[in-house]
Amino acid sequence: MTTAKPKVGFVGLGIMGKPMARNLVKAGYSVTVFDLVGSAVEELVTDGAAAGASAADVAKKSEVTILMVQNSPQSEAVLLGQHGILEGAARGHLVVDMSSIAPLVSQKLGKACAAKGVDFLDAPVSGGEPKAVDGTLAIMVGGKQKDFDRARPLFDKLGASAVLCGEHGAGNVTKLANQIVVAANIYAVAEALVLAQKAGLNPETVFKAIRGGLAGSTVMEAKAPMMFNRNFKPGFRIELHFKDLNNVMETARDYQIPLPMSAYLQQVTAALVNSGKGKLDHSGLLQFAEQISGVEVKKP
Amino acid sequence: MTTAKPKVGFVGLGIMGKPMARNLVKAGYSVTVFDLVGSAVEELVTDGAAAGASAADVAKKSEVTILMVQNSPQSEAVLLGQHGILEGAARGHLVVDMSSIAPLVSQKLGKACAAKGVDFLDAPVSGGEPKAVDGTLAIMVGGKQKDFDRARPLFDKLGASAVLCGEHGAGNVTKLANQIVVAANIYAVAEALVLAQKAGLNPETVFKAIRGGLAGSTVMEAKAPMMFNRNFKPGFRIELHFKDLNNVMETARDYQIPLPMSAYLQQVTAALVNSGKGKLDHSGLLQFAEQISGVEVKKP
Repeated sequence: MTTAKPKVGFVGLGIMGKPMARNLVKAGYSVTVFDLVGSAVEELVTDGAAAGASAADVAKKSEVTILMVQNSPQSEAVLLGQHGILEGAARGHLVVDMSSIAPLVSQKLGKACAAKGVDFLDAPVSGGEPKAVDGTLAIMVGGKQKDFDRARPLFDKLGASAVLCGEHGAGNVTKLANQIVVAANIYAVAEALVLAQKAGLNPETVFKAIRGGLAGSTVMEAKAPMMFNRNFKPGFRIELHFKDLNNVMETARDYQIPLPMSAYLQQVTAALVNSGKGKLDHSGLLQFAEQISGVEVKKP
Repeated sequence: MTTAKPKVGFVGLGIMGKPMARNLVKAGYSVTVFDLVGSAVEELVTDGAAAGASAADVAKKSEVTILMVQNSPQSEAVLLGQHGILEGAARGHLVVDMSSIAPLVSQKLGKACAAKGVDFLDAPVSGGEPKAVDGTLAIMVGGKQKDFDRARPLFDKLGASAVLCGEHGAGNVTKLANQIVVAANIYAVAEALVLAQKAGLNPETVFKAIRGGLAGSTVMEAKAPMMFNRNFKPGFRIELHFKDLNNVMETARDYQIPLPMSAYLQQVTAALVNSGKGKLDHSGLLQFAEQISGVEVKKP
C-alpha cells in the first residue's frame, strides 16, 4: 500500500533545522517553513519550500509540523504562544518537536497538544550539523507507537536511526543521556591531551596511538583533531551543551539523584559561557582544562 | 632482505600475556616463557614454547625479552631484581616492557638497561583480553626509533597498530591518556544509564538510540551491554584501572597540573576497591553511580 506524502510544516531553520528541512524538500515533500530569520526562509524557498507567515500559518497549511528550536522556552513559545503551532493545528495534526529540551517540558507540551486533539512526539537528535546535512542523524523519540509509525517516513529522510524510547519526554531523557556521554568524552580527551602535552608529547601522535584501542570514539575522531589544530568553529556550541547539562542537572534534581561527573561538566560549561566562550564548538571544553593547567594543546 | 626471527623471551603470562605469547608462538617465533604461576607456563609449553627457569634464564636464552606484568613494582622486580632479566641479558639485548606502569619508572628502567648496554622500550597496550587474543591491540611505544624498528615485526603480530610516541616513558604517558578516556567514558555511560533507568526507560533501548550518534564509542559497544545485562566478569579489573588512575594522578602531581575529572575517577575506583569490588570488570564503575543514586540499571 502506498500513501500520499503528508504536507509538512517546519519551524526553526537554524544550523540544524535548515539542512533537515532541505532534506525533506529534496525527498519530494511539500514543505512550508517559518523562521524569525527571513534570510533562512528565503534560502529554503529557493530550494522549493513555501514560506509560512507564522508558526500558526505553517501548521494550518500542514498535516505534520516539525519544530527545531534552541531550548525549552522557545519550544513552549512556538507551540503554545500567540501565532503558535497550536493556533493553526487541526485535530489529528502531528507535532514532532525535534528540539533538545527538558523532558518535563516535553511532557507538558504533549498534554497541551492532547487537550486540542493534536498528537505529539518529542524527537531530539544527535550527530550535529554534518549528520543533519547527510540525513544520518540519530533520532531519539518519546510518544505513542502509532505517532512514531506515522512520523517514521520523515525520520527515514532525516536520520540513520530512529528509536522509540518510551512515552512523552523519553526522547529528551535519552538525549540528555547522550549529552552526558558526549560532554564527558570531550572533556576526557581534553584532560588526556593536556597531560600528554605537558609531558612533551605530540598530541596528534597520542591521538593516532590510542584511537584504535578501547579509548576510540566518535567524539575522539571528530574533536581531537579540532583540539590540536586549534579550530573551535561550531559545530555544536558550548552554550547549547550548557543548556543540555542544565537540563540534565534539573532532571537529576527532580529525581533526587546525584550525577557528580555531569555536575562537574555543567560547571565547566558554565565557566566557559561566563568567560565569553559560549559560541565556540564544544571541543572548546579543552580550553577550561588548559586554563587550569597552564598548558596549550597544539601539534608542533 | 629477510632477517632471521630473533629468539623471544616472554615474562608474565596473565590474562593479557598468555594470549600475546601464544600469538608469537603461532607466528613461528622461538619463545621462552616464565611466570610464577606454573600452570600458565605449562599451557604455553603445550602450545610450543620453552619454559625458562627464571626471568634471568629467559633473557639468557633470548635476544628480545617482552615483559607483561601488573604494575611498576613488578616491572622493577622482574627487570632489576634477583634472577631478573638484567642478570641474564647480554649487551645488545632488547627489553620490551608492555606492562602499564608509571612513566617515571619506565624512564628509570630505560636508564638501568642502558647502563648495561641493553636497549629498552616501554610499550603498553590497550584493547583488553579480546584484542590480545586477536592480535589487534593498540601499542603505545616510548624509546629510540632503531629499537622500535627492531621490535616492529613482533608488534605486528600482537597489535593492529604500534605508534612510537616519544622517548622512554612516552608509551606509558600515552597509556595514561588512554586510561583517562576509557574510565571517563565508562563512568559517563554509567551516569547516562542511571538517569535513564530512574526515568523509567529501558537502558538497552537508550543504548540502541544513542550508539549511532556522537556518543558512540568502543567503550559503549563493549561495556553498556555488560552493564544492563549485569555481567561484570573481567576483562579488565577495576583494581588495575585504579592502579592506572593512581599513576595518572601521581604524574599530574609531578607536573603540577590539576585533572579534576581524572581525580574523581581515581576516587570512584578507590571506593570500589575498598568495598571489595576491585576484581570486577571496569564496567563495574557503574556500581558506584548506582550506589549513590539508589538505582539499579537492568534491562526489563
